Amino acid sequence: MNLSEYIRNVENFPKEGVHFKDITPLLANKDAVSFCLQQLVAMVGDSKIDKVVGIESRGFFFGTLLAQKLNAGFVPIRKPGKLPYSTLKEPYQLEYGMDALEIHEDAIKKRERVLLHDDVLATGGTARAACNLIEKLGGEIVQCNFLIELEFLNGIKKLQNHPVKSLLKY
Amino acid sequence: MNLSEYIRNVENFPKEGVHFKDITPLLANKDAVSFCLQQLVAMVGDSKIDKVVGIESRGFFFGTLLAQKLNAGFVPIRKPGKLPYSTLKEPYQLEYGMDALEIHEDAIKKRERVLLHDDVLATGGTARAACNLIEKLGGEIVQCNFLIELEFLNGIKKLQNHPVKSLLKY
Repeated sequence: MNLSEYIRNVENFPKEGVHFKDITPLLANKDAVSFCLQQLVAMVGDSKIDKVVGIESRGFFFGTLLAQKLNAGFVPIRKPGKLPYSTLKEPYQLEYGMDALEIHEDAIKKRERVLLHDDVLATGGTARAACNLIEKLGGEIVQCNFLIELEFLNGIKKLQNHPVKSLLKY
Repeated sequence: MNLSEYIRNVENFPKEGVHFKDITPLLANKDAVSFCLQQLVAMVGDSKIDKVVGIESRGFFFGTLLAQKLNAGFVPIRKPGKLPYSTLKEPYQLEYGMDALEIHEDAIKKRERVLLHDDVLATGGTARAACNLIEKLGGEIVQCNFLIELEFLNGIKKLQNHPVKSLLKY
């Protein structure tokens, strides 16, 4: 199965000049989801995983599925103000200005083995902030796992000290 | 397994006077997720489902899992401006002011059998708007499926013409 046939290119979204990779055609097709999940699981190999962390909100789709397949718990990392309980907050740089991510302070225990998942690795800013949050809670990042990597943005550079695997590269 | 032990009550979130039901302790526990998913699937019975629709963003967690278990495609309904392709938009009333939801116009085909899922049924405003979007695309709503129903808010009244099932009632 050629998964890239299920990724729709949307020009100038969310802003002028950006070529957006839309994964909703993939999500809508049960066979494509099953195949994609199988491949994402295979990227993890035999590593034991305690928690899968998914980044709001497109990282929640395959994040929850991965957690179930890997027999791990699921932890959401969200934008500020969305998580109801006590959180750690990590700011990160945008092209213009700053944003931040939050994680519940009890979401990961010390030395738990964590798989970080998001749909797209672009500049790496959010993934780096997510890694920082996981490590501040004492989690050990086993892999940063992406459905899509936009190689020309070189986001992998921001994740240098972690294993990074991506299923589709553009 | 008593699932309500995995639901955390957070007082005054997202605003003063609201008792928020936090499902993140449930998500973090793989056995609780498996059990909960089994129960949500059982609520659907033998009905054939073509698409599971999940509402942004806590409806994405069990929405994607349900789609996988029911051998159905998954469709996200999101806040305005988040979906990249051509959308239908449905406004709905908040306590003060208005909000809206969007769905991709090609997400559901005419006469497809749809399961709507969200984590919480509160006043029913978002669920009603989601139903309207699904029906405007020609989908047939088989069930509105919730993890939690806040019965005192009587949201079921807004969904009168559809079967509604909830796993936990408060």
